[in-house]
Amino acid sequence: MKNCLVAQSGGPTTVINASLAGVVRANQLNPVYDTVFGGLNGIEGILEDRLYDLTNMTEFENRVLRQTPSSALGSCRYKLKRTDDTDYRKLVAIMDKHDIEIMFYIGGNDSMDTVDALSQWAKENNINKRFVGIPKTVDNDLMVTDHCPGFASGAKFANYVVNATWLDYHVYTRAEVFILETMGRDAGWLAGSTVCTGKVDLVVLPEVAFDKKVFLAQVKKCMDEKGKCYIVTSEGAQFADGTYIAAGEAANDGFGHAVLGGAGETLKRMILEAGIAPRAKVQDLSSAARSSNFAQSLVDVTEAFELGISAHSRSANPTFTGHVVAVQREMRDGKYNAKFIAGPAENFANHVKHVPTEWILDGYQGLTQEFHDYVNPLMAGEPTLIMDGNIPATVIPYHQR
Amino acid sequence: MKNCLVAQSGGPTTVINASLAGVVRANQLNPVYDTVFGGLNGIEGILEDRLYDLTNMTEFENRVLRQTPSSALGSCRYKLKRTDDTDYRKLVAIMDKHDIEIMFYIGGNDSMDTVDALSQWAKENNINKRFVGIPKTVDNDLMVTDHCPGFASGAKFANYVVNATWLDYHVYTRAEVFILETMGRDAGWLAGSTVCTGKVDLVVLPEVAFDKKVFLAQVKKCMDEKGKCYIVTSEGAQFADGTYIAAGEAANDGFGHAVLGGAGETLKRMILEAGIAPRAKVQDLSSAARSSNFAQSLVDVTEAFELGISAHSRSANPTFTGHVVAVQREMRDGKYNAKFIAGPAENFANHVKHVPTEWILDGYQGLTQEFHDYVNPLMAGEPTLIMDGNIPATVIPYHQR
Repeated sequence: MKNCLVAQSGGPTTVINASLAGVVRANQLNPVYDTVFGGLNGIEGILEDRLYDLTNMTEFENRVLRQTPSSALGSCRYKLKRTDDTDYRKLVAIMDKHDIEIMFYIGGNDSMDTVDALSQWAKENNINKRFVGIPKTVDNDLMVTDHCPGFASGAKFANYVVNATWLDYHVYTRAEVFILETMGRDAGWLAGSTVCTGKVDLVVLPEVAFDKKVFLAQVKKCMDEKGKCYIVTSEGAQFADGTYIAAGEAANDGFGHAVLGGAGETLKRMILEAGIAPRAKVQDLSSAARSSNFAQSLVDVTEAFELGISAHSRSANPTFTGHVVAVQREMRDGKYNAKFIAGPAENFANHVKHVPTEWILDGYQGLTQEFHDYVNPLMAGEPTLIMDGNIPATVIPYHQR
Repeated sequence: MKNCLVAQSGGPTTVINASLAGVVRANQLNPVYDTVFGGLNGIEGILEDRLYDLTNMTEFENRVLRQTPSSALGSCRYKLKRTDDTDYRKLVAIMDKHDIEIMFYIGGNDSMDTVDALSQWAKENNINKRFVGIPKTVDNDLMVTDHCPGFASGAKFANYVVNATWLDYHVYTRAEVFILETMGRDAGWLAGSTVCTGKVDLVVLPEVAFDKKVFLAQVKKCMDEKGKCYIVTSEGAQFADGTYIAAGEAANDGFGHAVLGGAGETLKRMILEAGIAPRAKVQDLSSAARSSNFAQSLVDVTEAFELGISAHSRSANPTFTGHVVAVQREMRDGKYNAKFIAGPAENFANHVKHVPTEWILDGYQGLTQEFHDYVNPLMAGEPTLIMDGNIPATVIPYHQR
């Protein structure tokens, strides 16, 4: 008898549960493991022996799970220390207790680091446990993989909202600036994606050191030309010295990351103080962008599901550990196609994939055709939603059962 | 030869263009008028003779128009003075110039007042021009009509976002408050509608004088019980003396209405200062709720379209003026059905339909079954969207052509 464990960590996305559904479904199609345990609230809950048996989930629940936003297993911000293996040993004891030989960890940068640390440590200590990563992040900032599940659905929702609010804000003739803020701490993929609407005048990304003078001059130029300026900013917009422009409102989370929010309000203040526009409105997409199950990209949710299957299937090979499954882009007759790959977790972890600076136009004026060509195929298609009355059906989160 | 004019005013909604599409389509099915002119930017643009010929719109454009958010004709906040008929005479001159005998005005409270004022004045001065109102408002605060087109789609979007962000915010075990803010200056229909998700712990409506002590006690109770508290507040939440709780950030628009925003942030400040929760997050739906074409209610968009048809058809009767078309609810075998009616504009204008206080539970704990039964049927169904690449197709606004 051998079992597997699957858990989720970090910030949720709209399709992180599709990867979970993929692992569970793959094991129903080929029962490599007797039991598929879900670890509740990531490492934090697993260390407290909080597991949930997912093995015999119905096909219908599996389908609803794929359209359920958030982490259905719960999440955590708990980071295992590389300098002290107390938690590692505790984790192995829990795995032993339940005959678990492998753990699938669905997460972002920090989770891939955890996969790397655990698998290295297990090898060094001749412990027969394996750790495999499945990527996710709305920020799209993981290395190796062409893109991260969760990004395209966030981008699709951001595109929907930009298109809708741009129309809404243009109904009056009055001079006014509109500022939409998106998530994106260190990378501007999500904010940048909104240029695909063709509606964005200026876009502020973390990749470009913020220059107040240049920015305000561009806003002024736009207002002079048409009396309107639609701006999208990433929450992580920052000055040359790395200070977030929203720094005044920053706090710290457990990982030493700044908790952001407020870049849009900061830009609004700058614009009004400079007297460039008499009015400015801010809309912050905030966590709606990473939970917008009503705006899933079909490509995104499908790939997230298939990455779960891919991780499970590859794990039938007993040497498969310390790896992360990922997507490589291949163009077939000019059309996007996803190829599934896997690589060492250390290559994914603790690096940030930025929007290439050669894709960013000067003066906050948007992004190049290469960027459009990169993002557009990822947002394609809309899955048919299973409804529960007037809202999309969702499973009851396992960590709340 | 006789023509008609249709225009839009006030804040846009997700389905205000469906009513416009209804008028245009009705005239194609029965050409009562030779030309259907769209007045650009409401009264403001009409007084500048800015008209657009909509008569021969294709059926496909008509269909896309129904799913285009914002006011495709543009809007205005210009209010005709009852004390001075200069603008009235100017308007009639423009109508005469284009052989226009009737104007359909799609709008809220103020626009229905305009319909009333113009039709009264025309009668008193023996001027053979007619004025008919078609209601809209995401706030749902018009009298006479059972509900206002635009409300249900806003409510549907708000329900989508509450359901999604509730799941997102529950993934961590940490104690935290989530506050969602919706539009709703004087009436709490939109904020209240979110209780239909079954996810909202506390809801703050303008109808109930805000009592900080009671509110904070309720938040504390909720946090003590489960370490989480999901709150929805209307932007118009107000103290007993009528001061908005967000008053610090209020400004004024041309009508003497306070321009709101910030009720959520105010509640957050109160909760953190009282030490009831260590963290609180605010999400403001802002104008996304009234432009969420990707979350239209099928009932809402259908009724909005049919109200346009109804107004046009009734206008074939030459005595039909100073009236507003509306919807009456009738229950057939326990199921919702809309009956189309019309009534004098004066009964619609300058009153606010509040959420009945007998439907509001004490201590911000939500709303009664009567409220649920009122809102739920209005949000039913999802229209099939016509897509333009990865986003819903929209027409180019006529005021921008």
